[in-house]
Amino acid sequence: MIQAPDPDNQDGPSSYAGRLAEYVSRTAFDDLPAAVSHEASRAFLNFMGCALGGSHEEIVDATERALGRFSGPPQATLIGRQRRSDILLASLINCASSSVHSFDDSHAEAVVHPAGPVTAAILALAELAPVSGPDFLLALALGIDIECRVSKAISVPPARAELGWSQTGVSGGIGAAVAAGKLLGLDQASLAAAIGIAASQAAGLREFNGTMCMCLMPAHAAQTGLRAALLAQGGIASSMHSLEAKYGFTRMFAKEAHLASLIDGLGDKFEILSNTYKPYPCGIVINPIVDACLELKSQHDLKADAIELIQLRVNPMVLVLTDLRHPTDKASGQVSLYHWAAVAIMRGAAGLNEGDMDAIQDGAIAALRNRIEPIADSAIRTDEVMANVTLKDGRTWSYHVEHCRGSRERPLSDRELEQKFRNQAKRALAPNVIETLIENCWTIAHSNDVGAIARSAA
Amino acid sequence: MIQAPDPDNQDGPSSYAGRLAEYVSRTAFDDLPAAVSHEASRAFLNFMGCALGGSHEEIVDATERALGRFSGPPQATLIGRQRRSDILLASLINCASSSVHSFDDSHAEAVVHPAGPVTAAILALAELAPVSGPDFLLALALGIDIECRVSKAISVPPARAELGWSQTGVSGGIGAAVAAGKLLGLDQASLAAAIGIAASQAAGLREFNGTMCMCLMPAHAAQTGLRAALLAQGGIASSMHSLEAKYGFTRMFAKEAHLASLIDGLGDKFEILSNTYKPYPCGIVINPIVDACLELKSQHDLKADAIELIQLRVNPMVLVLTDLRHPTDKASGQVSLYHWAAVAIMRGAAGLNEGDMDAIQDGAIAALRNRIEPIADSAIRTDEVMANVTLKDGRTWSYHVEHCRGSRERPLSDRELEQKFRNQAKRALAPNVIETLIENCWTIAHSNDVGAIARSAA
Repeated sequence: MIQAPDPDNQDGPSSYAGRLAEYVSRTAFDDLPAAVSHEASRAFLNFMGCALGGSHEEIVDATERALGRFSGPPQATLIGRQRRSDILLASLINCASSSVHSFDDSHAEAVVHPAGPVTAAILALAELAPVSGPDFLLALALGIDIECRVSKAISVPPARAELGWSQTGVSGGIGAAVAAGKLLGLDQASLAAAIGIAASQAAGLREFNGTMCMCLMPAHAAQTGLRAALLAQGGIASSMHSLEAKYGFTRMFAKEAHLASLIDGLGDKFEILSNTYKPYPCGIVINPIVDACLELKSQHDLKADAIELIQLRVNPMVLVLTDLRHPTDKASGQVSLYHWAAVAIMRGAAGLNEGDMDAIQDGAIAALRNRIEPIADSAIRTDEVMANVTLKDGRTWSYHVEHCRGSRERPLSDRELEQKFRNQAKRALAPNVIETLIENCWTIAHSNDVGAIARSAA
Repeated sequence: MIQAPDPDNQDGPSSYAGRLAEYVSRTAFDDLPAAVSHEASRAFLNFMGCALGGSHEEIVDATERALGRFSGPPQATLIGRQRRSDILLASLINCASSSVHSFDDSHAEAVVHPAGPVTAAILALAELAPVSGPDFLLALALGIDIECRVSKAISVPPARAELGWSQTGVSGGIGAAVAAGKLLGLDQASLAAAIGIAASQAAGLREFNGTMCMCLMPAHAAQTGLRAALLAQGGIASSMHSLEAKYGFTRMFAKEAHLASLIDGLGDKFEILSNTYKPYPCGIVINPIVDACLELKSQHDLKADAIELIQLRVNPMVLVLTDLRHPTDKASGQVSLYHWAAVAIMRGAAGLNEGDMDAIQDGAIAALRNRIEPIADSAIRTDEVMANVTLKDGRTWSYHVEHCRGSRERPLSDRELEQKFRNQAKRALAPNVIETLIENCWTIAHSNDVGAIARSAA
């Protein structure tokens, strides 16, 4: 409002938030390519499965216990919890459920897990007044698009990613605000205001990854984003230069901003098509390690007792993020490469059960963690690993994962996503309900009340 | 939780949050010097006045309109609004009211307006269950202490203040969490968790100063801080290294951290004694300009028509923050040095009325803004100004403000604070209610139910 257009950026629009708002406000469902709307359905299915899978975690229980008595009317479903709350609390809790296992989704270039904040915000809103499937998928696709663009603007070179920010935390609220604002029918000025309000409350620090409050960072983004759209609808204005100003979003969350990411190919290139779904409930950079260990286990029927050493040649970032040999709880277990390598070898599996406390505390798994040796190698990509097993009898086996499962090169198929969903949903729902819900997620484009899908996952 | 103690900081405690939590948990009201508890009463009186004065601003109306339908039970007073909401929404709205006029308080070294987030959080909590005056003042003093220490850790040299962060926004939630946690009787571990949870949601960017969502940044801090304490009470854990870790609070919000600020003189040196109360409802660095213009007006009976030019030699920061010649609304008016210089000359006053739209839009005031010339001079402090008026007839007058009113060197007296309170409160309350409320604020140490004071300001 009081900031002049950025003098360093003569080629860009005078207001990036205004430009994005203009795009969002004029885009209709029919403007989405079929692949985009299908990918939005996949993102929705995956979100619902993750939220169901996480809905009975202690962190989610504790959050509802602590905050439930301050809830407004029972407007929206708390997924998998057989309870309802006001839509703002529902957006917080459902996003926390979907994030708590680090099992959600991942946009590698934008370094975010985009669907959680956006979907939790608009799914709650869809219970306040009926929303059609096409409107919902459109808002979801646009919210993810803007969230990823905003995050790329602080991470794509020459922007130097500040590793210390939780990029989902800081970018997610803007995506949620855009998506909620689209569903609320905000005009261009109000959408730009919503982006600014969300940016003014954008938060999240990497130090909290691996702690109980990790999943509350995307959850906070979901809630502040939804709230930003409601406040903008109510007439709260903001800066039109929230994204590019000297003391605005991109300049503060990155050493240098890559503003072109915000608008390049807008309407032609959809970021949701670069989104991927996680095959294992742990930090994304651990995925190739899990692939390799499962494969070695299966090929050679490995027994932990026979193993002398497992060497893992990994991208250096893997050690920066997951070099925790002995986790103490489920939250820290998610970011321990040692745990997931060991449990995959021990159990030949790496699902939700392998992240539970009995696995974290298993003495044999703990012992095997001590015989795992990661080696940082900048020639290895983050979706790659070179694994070598040395047995006590001197034999060695090796396996190279070029691109891990769930990477852009090896995305989960629709059937694999369904199977992931079943394994998550069975923690909260009966089998017959699960199959109906899967069907309803796939056919969401034909729904005239998406809120009914949420209610069927209560 | 997963982070080792900071290797760069062998002399500090292994966990700064733990050290602060230990201090907060063991400190009792009787440990506070009398000057500290009196200053806490002053901070409370000033908060109540600011909240009353701002309670009918359009921003506050719009926020309640937008969010009221998601409120839980009517647990807490919305100050000056004759309405109630759940305590989380009340903390948000009351802090917004107290901040909306930029008329609150200021801790120069910590670069924060500390009382708003802390007081709004604990005043709401004091209506959930009765809280005594001493317990309230203790929590208030401790919350402000930790908030200022956290903010100093990112701004006191060698920490290089990142001007782009709203330091009240990013530090206020931690102060509110500490204060609320103290009232909730959290143990040391839970208080440290509350600090971490608040840090994980710390937010605020300077770009939004001068916009409608400026006051929502401290408000967001109040609410997230209160919520952090409630979540910690409910069992949510966090990192013990939230403040000092490589990807934690101080390292990310400052180019270099000044960790000693967190603990130096803890229990001996109380930051609240360095807090000051603002005499004019505008950006703090504009205060000396207002002083000078009011004095010149009064000494020489200045008429705007007779003025050729007003030169103001100011600290360079004044231009960085308030160089907006023609504001368009009340929010931007607060950060226009030109507006406040002109209105002080025109009206011989600089109170709430002088920030209203009729003043912002007054053609004569707007014309005078064009004849005001600030000159940046790094030899001038931020609480100082050299003002020179040149009249059209060639005469010149000058006035030097060495330390402005409301600075640490010239703090408002108790009587001046009362007068400020009256001028604010009359926007919401009847005169007889105002005098009773002033009395109740001064005698808060003898109250056995601080919530009753909030209710008397409904």
